[in-house]
Amino acid sequence: MNERRQKGLQIMDAIVGDYASKLTSDIEQLAPGFSDTLIELAFGDVCARPGLDLKMRELATIAALTSLGTAAPQLRLHVNGALNVGCSRTEIVEVIVQTALYAGIPATLNGLTIAKDVFAARPLL
Amino acid sequence: MNERRQKGLQIMDAIVGDYASKLTSDIEQLAPGFSDTLIELAFGDVCARPGLDLKMRELATIAALTSLGTAAPQLRLHVNGALNVGCSRTEIVEVIVQTALYAGIPATLNGLTIAKDVFAARPLL
Amino acid sequence: MNERRQKGLQIMDAIVGDYASKLTSDIEQLAPGFSDTLIELAFGDVCARPGLDLKMRELATIAALTSLGTAAPQLRLHVNGALNVGCSRTEIVEVIVQTALYAGIPATLNGLTIAKDVFAARPLL
Amino acid sequence: MNERRQKGLQIMDAIVGDYASKLTSDIEQLAPGFSDTLIELAFGDVCARPGLDLKMRELATIAALTSLGTAAPQLRLHVNGALNVGCSRTEIVEVIVQTALYAGIPATLNGLTIAKDVFAARPLL
Amino acid sequence: MNERRQKGLQIMDAIVGDYASKLTSDIEQLAPGFSDTLIELAFGDVCARPGLDLKMRELATIAALTSLGTAAPQLRLHVNGALNVGCSRTEIVEVIVQTALYAGIPATLNGLTIAKDVFAARPLL
Amino acid sequence: MNERRQKGLQIMDAIVGDYASKLTSDIEQLAPGFSDTLIELAFGDVCARPGLDLKMRELATIAALTSLGTAAPQLRLHVNGALNVGCSRTEIVEVIVQTALYAGIPATLNGLTIAKDVFAARPLL
Repeated sequence: MNERRQKGLQIMDAIVGDYASKLTSDIEQLAPGFSDTLIELAFGDVCARPGLDLKMRELATIAALTSLGTAAPQLRLHVNGALNVGCSRTEIVEVIVQTALYAGIPATLNGLTIAKDVFAARPLL
Repeated sequence: MNERRQKGLQIMDAIVGDYASKLTSDIEQLAPGFSDTLIELAFGDVCARPGLDLKMRELATIAALTSLGTAAPQLRLHVNGALNVGCSRTEIVEVIVQTALYAGIPATLNGLTIAKDVFAARPLL
Repeated sequence: MNERRQKGLQIMDAIVGDYASKLTSDIEQLAPGFSDTLIELAFGDVCARPGLDLKMRELATIAALTSLGTAAPQLRLHVNGALNVGCSRTEIVEVIVQTALYAGIPATLNGLTIAKDVFAARPLL
Repeated sequence: MNERRQKGLQIMDAIVGDYASKLTSDIEQLAPGFSDTLIELAFGDVCARPGLDLKMRELATIAALTSLGTAAPQLRLHVNGALNVGCSRTEIVEVIVQTALYAGIPATLNGLTIAKDVFAARPLL
Repeated sequence: MNERRQKGLQIMDAIVGDYASKLTSDIEQLAPGFSDTLIELAFGDVCARPGLDLKMRELATIAALTSLGTAAPQLRLHVNGALNVGCSRTEIVEVIVQTALYAGIPATLNGLTIAKDVFAARPLL
Repeated sequence: MNERRQKGLQIMDAIVGDYASKLTSDIEQLAPGFSDTLIELAFGDVCARPGLDLKMRELATIAALTSLGTAAPQLRLHVNGALNVGCSRTEIVEVIVQTALYAGIPATLNGLTIAKDVFAARPLL
């Protein structure tokens, strides 16, 4: 196993947790070989770059996905991911609120609705 | 002057610096009264919310603007703003790179080009 | 209560009707303080600007939301809002059809589907 | 000449004015036959539908183009078009300001900048 | 019946199959006259242009709809349409994977999910 | 040099030609290490997948970039790339025209303008 893949699996595990194997097999079933690309690229290459920690990468991801407004399943996954790597609920909510200025109020309200659902499904530690 | 406006002017000054008065009068000329809305809403209300500091708000803003890909002048302003409130060049570059996974590679390359131009126009402290 | 808030509540009531209090408390639960921003900014400041009446503002809102294609719940709310402030069903349909040229046919078809659902749920006066 | 084409040319002339023949020949040079589609579809079919006058259609178009943020040349053309069919400068500015709530502040500022340029290039009647 | 309409009905039938009459009456109910525009414009004019066959037009359509990420019902229709005019499942999947580079990974994953659902609902020939 | 990188450089060369080394060094200057990700991911992994040839991948890319409307420099590069791997001018124009139905007429007109510029700068073979 190459180093990039190893780092990718490790970071995917930190962000996605137990859901990683289902995520991988779902993608693999859709497009054979594409889950390798995702593990090695998204998690093993981009997310593993120095200069920004995983918490900050997850918050930037939430800002991006909320602004695009076309990625509800992925926003759900990364709100969970942000919590998994140590972001607080307040940090997540505030990043989503911040995008209202740049992507519009509906993007923010739809993002907040997803965050609320994710929060409700997790025990408060 | 109400408290929201006062906070707004203060935060706008921290982010935009000397450019604030030109920005305000440009907007005011375009749509009378709208600069008040921006000062009080964007800077005095949203950016002043507790729970996330200005550095993180600027990085979330850069993630949002890069992902949208439709806001070159505003991305330029906020790359400057992020530097003004204390973000490092590396943090800005990494937030832009992170969006490649979610908004596509062209969004990231166009964002990096803007960041490079802003960096080049500022003295390295 | 300041004047902007008062105007905001009045305009929100005109557009959203009985749903206003649920809307406000939903948002407030998601992001404390953000419903105040919306009432004072969206309804009390922007929508209350002179030079364009509420009917025209709601039709412009429908054109914007249909074109973005990422804001189904908000389009639903504003199709209702447009009817509440006196727009006709035909005006709403024609604004949605007009966007086909600029945002593409899928945006229009998805907008029309939402409008049809809203129309079906309201009694014809 | 069929009726749809005749109506299309008439409405295109009302909106675009003297620029119509250049617009048509530019498009025709790019994609032979596509200017006929535009004249008959955009102007002769959609814009000629009953239930909404040309002024309102142009304002909805401006709301759509401002919100998308990817169509600067077309927004310029339709700000001119809106003025040509009788919209006031204030109506145009207010439609653009209204989209700030739904498409974000950068979309509005970029739209206002285009409107300002168009206004500056036309004599005040 | 004019030639454009005749060609439009023929191409719509090739792409949409038995679903054509329901599609047309759904649209007609939403906006009277708009189904004629679609048949004559989309299918009879644009899709009938020489220089690109229907298979390639459907694959380009799938690339466009996946990238926009705002048109799930239309992507579903055109994945079916691509299969109807002779595209293979692999060609469809690969076009969707290709967009990951330009529109981001969530756009691709959401497109693949739709393709998988369409494939599952059709018998393997 | 790993196999993915080797394939990536080979495909990048086929698409981008002489411009490859400038492209790589530009990106590398913006975000150190990111050009490796692009070579290995975009060109060596995604573009090298079986099931779709490079001509078809470039046409799908043009459909995606035209529809997004936010990637003028990349659309320019890939119109050149499509010609480099053997697509005809007509195929490129028709893919861009096809997107008018799904992404709107402005997206198509702006895409056609870029294609026209690229065509004009290349000798007709």
